[in-house]
Amino acid sequence: MAQTRFTLHRDPLLANCYKIKLTAALLHIPLEKHNHSILSGDTQTPEFQNKVSFWRRIPVLQVDKSSFLPESNAACFNLAGPISFQTTPFQKAEMLRWMFFEQNHHEVSVASLRFWLHILGEESLSADRIAHIPAKKVAARQCFDYMEDHLANHSQSGWFVGDSITLADICLFAYTHIAAHAGFDLKEWPAVKACCEKVKSVDAFC
Amino acid sequence: MAQTRFTLHRDPLLANCYKIKLTAALLHIPLEKHNHSILSGDTQTPEFQNKVSFWRRIPVLQVDKSSFLPESNAACFNLAGPISFQTTPFQKAEMLRWMFFEQNHHEVSVASLRFWLHILGEESLSADRIAHIPAKKVAARQCFDYMEDHLANHSQSGWFVGDSITLADICLFAYTHIAAHAGFDLKEWPAVKACCEKVKSVDAFC
Repeated sequence: MAQTRFTLHRDPLLANCYKIKLTAALLHIPLEKHNHSILSGDTQTPEFQNKVSFWRRIPVLQVDKSSFLPESNAACFNLAGPISFQTTPFQKAEMLRWMFFEQNHHEVSVASLRFWLHILGEESLSADRIAHIPAKKVAARQCFDYMEDHLANHSQSGWFVGDSITLADICLFAYTHIAAHAGFDLKEWPAVKACCEKVKSVDAFC
Repeated sequence: MAQTRFTLHRDPLLANCYKIKLTAALLHIPLEKHNHSILSGDTQTPEFQNKVSFWRRIPVLQVDKSSFLPESNAACFNLAGPISFQTTPFQKAEMLRWMFFEQNHHEVSVASLRFWLHILGEESLSADRIAHIPAKKVAARQCFDYMEDHLANHSQSGWFVGDSITLADICLFAYTHIAAHAGFDLKEWPAVKACCEKVKSVDAFC
């Protein structure tokens, strides 16, 4: 077995952490895991801030003793880099297109609804957050509609880019396959649901 | 002069569009511009949705007659791809780290405040948006603090990654250099302000 080079600083509650674990598994890259609990404030300590990340968020991919890479999708990109997925240069840009969409639109609606409703529970939310739920639900639905249109009408393969799985599928899968936690039923978006099933059927899926 | 291959579908109001124009200028890549007015609803028409982007947002980088690339940072990556900036594989991941940070945290706070306060005007905002301003201001300040810490304490060069300008600097510059539109004075973050000045001093800056 190859020597472990990478350590994932994670909270298993977060699918932003899971997407890095899944990328490593699919590429057969050994990955150490170091668990932190965000609900217990583990990432808010001066130690975490000084050693791991000033930004006090996880996931962070530790690459060596003193190199730490925040941002889940950059971590996936770094893991996949040397091995990569089969893409032309334009397909790599399209892959990043969906990864930026994921962080700019999908994660800030779907993942945030899931965190509020499933992890924290609606009864514990501030009035400000409760007031913001309807807008987040609209935004999440727009994301699923957009993904459905792309997969149903602009993809021959059922993958987001090209003919096989890429980081676009993995990064979008992370919070999409648990959309029920955010109050959505993927039956409404059959091509999106089918793409999730395809990810689950890939060898080494975990 | 090289033949123009790329068309930028843009609204000059948006710095997400400007960052693509700046990337092309710095790399001496000819770029056609096709203007759309978001305030006039140009991107909400069935024509735009069917031809340019189902997502009905700009910027979109048109690569050929039928290939359209949404997401500003993916468009910058695609333009820079063949020429690229000088980066090791890990520096490329670090560059993407800041580009994902920009879309997941900086753009959703700084750009959105700028759009509300400077483009639309506070007097025309819905009660929901007005209620959300304080949280966006806190989030924007956290972004500038994080950037300041990185540039002041973890960068030898004053650039975000490595020893020269990369897409990380360009993508963060877009909304940072006009932070005053969102109500912030960069004097509070001197290393961030200095990085903006460095971008402005690069040959072919526009």
